[in-house]
Amino acid sequence: MDPDAVAKAFVDHYYRTFDVNRVALGGLYQDASMLTFEGVKIQGAAAIVAKLTSLPFQQCVHAISTVDCQPSGPAGGVLVFVSGSLQLAGESHTLKFSQMFHLMPTPQGSFYVLNDVFHLNYA
Amino acid sequence: MDPDAVAKAFVDHYYRTFDVNRVALGGLYQDASMLTFEGVKIQGAAAIVAKLTSLPFQQCVHAISTVDCQPSGPAGGVLVFVSGSLQLAGESHTLKFSQMFHLMPTPQGSFYVLNDVFHLNYA
Repeated sequence: MDPDAVAKAFVDHYYRTFDVNRVALGGLYQDASMLTFEGVKIQGAAAIVAKLTSLPFQQCVHAISTVDCQPSGPAGGVLVFVSGSLQLAGESHTLKFSQMFHLMPTPQGSFYVLNDVFHLNYA
Repeated sequence: MDPDAVAKAFVDHYYRTFDVNRVALGGLYQDASMLTFEGVKIQGAAAIVAKLTSLPFQQCVHAISTVDCQPSGPAGGVLVFVSGSLQLAGESHTLKFSQMFHLMPTPQGSFYVLNDVFHLNYA
């Protein structure tokens, strides 16, 4: 497994899915998954998707600036650290954000998101 | 183990040590540890300390804005996501940063830093 390739493929897939079909992100989480969204902790795929689909904007476009990754230990996980900006429909300015994912391998040879922390970078 | 208590104690200790005695950070890392500093990967406690102590500033003060943490899986690790700002001696403005740590338990009941990603948030 090449962590950099895993991270790049995941990041491409995650933000494209977020921007075009947010509800499909549910397939990337499991019951043990945790999202911290602007300081609020949410556990489990269903609750995470409910949160992501209830955000107060419908259309958005993520632009990714940097992706850093590291293997997270002997269990085969991959940590991914992303910085970028978020353009909301109808808004002229963008929101800078940082986000961290901890990807864990599935028995099927894919990865799911065990940990997800999303944080807006206020200027 | 309370992940929030672990994260808070670690963050207090890490940044205080960084600001007053940077070389002592070496005790927090092990040979398997990895630091990604502004996109550059560095492996092992000795190389990480060499990097941190060779940064182009001697005195600095970190101010922490947010700390989020999550358990990282069955191995007992803790993920810590920090945002804050860095004031360098002689500089009037501060640098905003985001940093992610993956803490793993030691047999002695403490924690070491397995993963560390540091990223400056450019405005």
